[in-house]
Amino acid sequence: MPITDRRTLLQTAAALPLATATTKVAFAQSSPGASAAPANVTRGLAHFLVTARYDDLPANVRKEGVRTLLNWVGVAIGGSHHQTVDIAVAALAPFSGPAQASLFGRRERFDIMNAAFINGVSSHIFDYDDTHLKTIIHPAGPVASAILALSEMQPVLGKELLNALVLGVEAECRIGNAVYPNHYDVGWHITGTAGVFGSAAAVGKLLNLNEQQMVWALGLAASQPVGLRESFGSMNKSFNPGRAAGNGIFAAMLASKNFTSSDGMIEAKRGWANTISTKQDYNEILGDLGKRYEAALNTYKPFACGIVMHPAIDAAIQLRNENKLTADQIERVDLKVHPLVLELTGKKTPHEGLEGKFSIYHAVAVAIVEGAGGEKQFSNRAVNDETVVALRSKISPVITPGIDPAQVDMTVVLKDGRQLHRHIEHAIGSAEMPMTDKQLETKFADLADGIIPAATIRRLMEACWNVENQPSAAEIAKMSVSA
Amino acid sequence: MPITDRRTLLQTAAALPLATATTKVAFAQSSPGASAAPANVTRGLAHFLVTARYDDLPANVRKEGVRTLLNWVGVAIGGSHHQTVDIAVAALAPFSGPAQASLFGRRERFDIMNAAFINGVSSHIFDYDDTHLKTIIHPAGPVASAILALSEMQPVLGKELLNALVLGVEAECRIGNAVYPNHYDVGWHITGTAGVFGSAAAVGKLLNLNEQQMVWALGLAASQPVGLRESFGSMNKSFNPGRAAGNGIFAAMLASKNFTSSDGMIEAKRGWANTISTKQDYNEILGDLGKRYEAALNTYKPFACGIVMHPAIDAAIQLRNENKLTADQIERVDLKVHPLVLELTGKKTPHEGLEGKFSIYHAVAVAIVEGAGGEKQFSNRAVNDETVVALRSKISPVITPGIDPAQVDMTVVLKDGRQLHRHIEHAIGSAEMPMTDKQLETKFADLADGIIPAATIRRLMEACWNVENQPSAAEIAKMSVSA
Repeated sequence: MPITDRRTLLQTAAALPLATATTKVAFAQSSPGASAAPANVTRGLAHFLVTARYDDLPANVRKEGVRTLLNWVGVAIGGSHHQTVDIAVAALAPFSGPAQASLFGRRERFDIMNAAFINGVSSHIFDYDDTHLKTIIHPAGPVASAILALSEMQPVLGKELLNALVLGVEAECRIGNAVYPNHYDVGWHITGTAGVFGSAAAVGKLLNLNEQQMVWALGLAASQPVGLRESFGSMNKSFNPGRAAGNGIFAAMLASKNFTSSDGMIEAKRGWANTISTKQDYNEILGDLGKRYEAALNTYKPFACGIVMHPAIDAAIQLRNENKLTADQIERVDLKVHPLVLELTGKKTPHEGLEGKFSIYHAVAVAIVEGAGGEKQFSNRAVNDETVVALRSKISPVITPGIDPAQVDMTVVLKDGRQLHRHIEHAIGSAEMPMTDKQLETKFADLADGIIPAATIRRLMEACWNVENQPSAAEIAKMSVSA
Repeated sequence: MPITDRRTLLQTAAALPLATATTKVAFAQSSPGASAAPANVTRGLAHFLVTARYDDLPANVRKEGVRTLLNWVGVAIGGSHHQTVDIAVAALAPFSGPAQASLFGRRERFDIMNAAFINGVSSHIFDYDDTHLKTIIHPAGPVASAILALSEMQPVLGKELLNALVLGVEAECRIGNAVYPNHYDVGWHITGTAGVFGSAAAVGKLLNLNEQQMVWALGLAASQPVGLRESFGSMNKSFNPGRAAGNGIFAAMLASKNFTSSDGMIEAKRGWANTISTKQDYNEILGDLGKRYEAALNTYKPFACGIVMHPAIDAAIQLRNENKLTADQIERVDLKVHPLVLELTGKKTPHEGLEGKFSIYHAVAVAIVEGAGGEKQFSNRAVNDETVVALRSKISPVITPGIDPAQVDMTVVLKDGRQLHRHIEHAIGSAEMPMTDKQLETKFADLADGIIPAATIRRLMEACWNVENQPSAAEIAKMSVSA
């Protein structure tokens, strides 16, 4: 008998039993291939999730959760009219269920699973969302998309929403920590793979799942990882957090009706971590749960481009604002940079907005001219602006030993002979130099401008800042639609 | 600067560009980490899929496609009232879109994505569906669930349905071949991971995608693998082909509106095959396309249990039918078996139907008493039947050197002293001894019995056998619902 057939016999027989927890025990006893779990990882996490209360959250964690929420709402609105979103809305409209949830920044309403997908796409399309720097997970996308949709379908207190958001982010970032970097290095888009757990955990929390149901929700989430890095550069990238959000709702809704999974889907021999990564550090998942919060480490991008250019943009804006600089005053700008800056963003003459994101010349020039580095500064308009185009030819980046990728050293030489100097050790938006609440508001307002009414923008930001006191979390989603 | 931050800079910058094929080219040129594709695998497969015509299919491939269809319809109806399906229907009903498609064996109608999920679950819940033995993929679940649902939403000729079914099965089995066994061994449920491609390919074919759109559909499918082997033994196992079906529709529908992905999602450095397997044999995907058909190698289970017991059940039914055996004639049954038989199915006193699937004693006894090994023979009723229970104590399996797992040697010793002997070299349902059309009909009728009206069962089988001449493939789904 050929080896393939032997395998088939074993595997097909092993594949047979069905449906109940007691059955699973019998299976484990009768099958020689049954997995030995290294620890009760899935159940331990589920136990934490179902018992963790809003009142348990430390103040700094609550605060970062609120900032995470506000930043996410802004980017979801800001990206909502990108062509990618228009296409997704058109493709899915014929299949959407009842109009349960808002599409942020738009007027259509979809069922919560399809709405979560769309909002997750919108929020990632500019690559301008939040970042858990230890794993490069963009945490809010999969989680906030899911629970804000759910909040329009069932009553959710604002503080319950915040608790679920923090717990979802905590679950996905801890699971991400457990497998990063190997898991990411091989090719997985970790925001989509770990993100499913975040969505399932947060939705499961709001559905008030019991511990066993939460174990199943995490198991069904483990069965639905999303996203490969090869898709970066296409619409498929923003697809990933969106689909992760939808998959997590799908998992949690099934689990809430007692659709079963196995009990150790994260840690078992043939479970998620072993299948999807060559590194598994389960202490990252269970260690100091409720004490150490990954959700408190979230960061937000001040500029709508790769962070390799952030120090230079930061320096340019600081010098511009402090000196009321205008382009016609400038003789040249000398920049001491790390080699990565030119390697990744060395494009000298961008013609399209997107190319501007790969041009240190454009980024510095537009920052000096407009005092910002938002999505509007990387538009087709901005890269073809005459003043910006003229100035960018005066930007001179020089690779300099001793300059770290997080640093930049900028000298602006003026036509009147003056030299303005700024050394950036950590750019704004880094973990060391977080964006202020005020800066988050500026970013938010800039993103929402022209999409939702100006008066609503202010009210919406207030609703986010005050989410803990909102009697109905649904108000946030309801205010986030276009006029 | 810590190493993590350096990684972050590189990766965040690399993650930036968006949305268009031309953009992607620019990205590949500007990024040092861009992937080198070993071959045009995704595009080559897409080209085949969009150009392959029904008229190109060899007769034996058509025939096996029809058998695949009939077998799948039977198992989908048969499993449709399992508790797993009831739960899934209840959980998803609040989110379903328009009533576009039938739930096989039931009365509800869901949108095609949710219907495909439910039907995929139903068809796998008994582990009684079809098997591509080289990969242990159950090919029809992800594909037939998707295209039969779609056939109720747009006009589809029967021969178009058959062509799409064959092409979907071909895509998933070839992609499975490329990564099997490594991919399966590490823990992936290959029916769910390769199955997404099958669904996307088949749906994309019926949507008449152009080559670029098919490339994107395959890319979006690659982004949504489903299922881990750890979930075997829970409802999560049948979840996997169902979700694969739904994910494939999701991918194809987005691609049909020009939602982009990257061009080499199967073969690129950080694409599917490299990320999800340590083996990649791309010749399995592209070699002899349109000449060698994996779809022609499909097999069907005659008995609703692991195939390790199939030779013994086959022998028992043959001796029973040829000799009109009854239980009270039998002194004992001597079975020479391979060690795997007792290792996997050595349970002597099953109390529940499911346990019967792990009892060679029960399987042989019930086969002699009832002349079958269908789902009904592994019910709670069957394992507690007095005659069966009495007979199973007379079944004596003995591990015997020289007996292969595919073989069995059975001697029935009668009370009158006669000995009846049968040696099975290849059991019915194996590749060497395929089920006859008549046997497929018996299996089908047994599964559909009590779920759809008797008169409809016959008409439905005829509709499947004659699918190539059906002006509307939707008739099959429409006939498959309960009264």
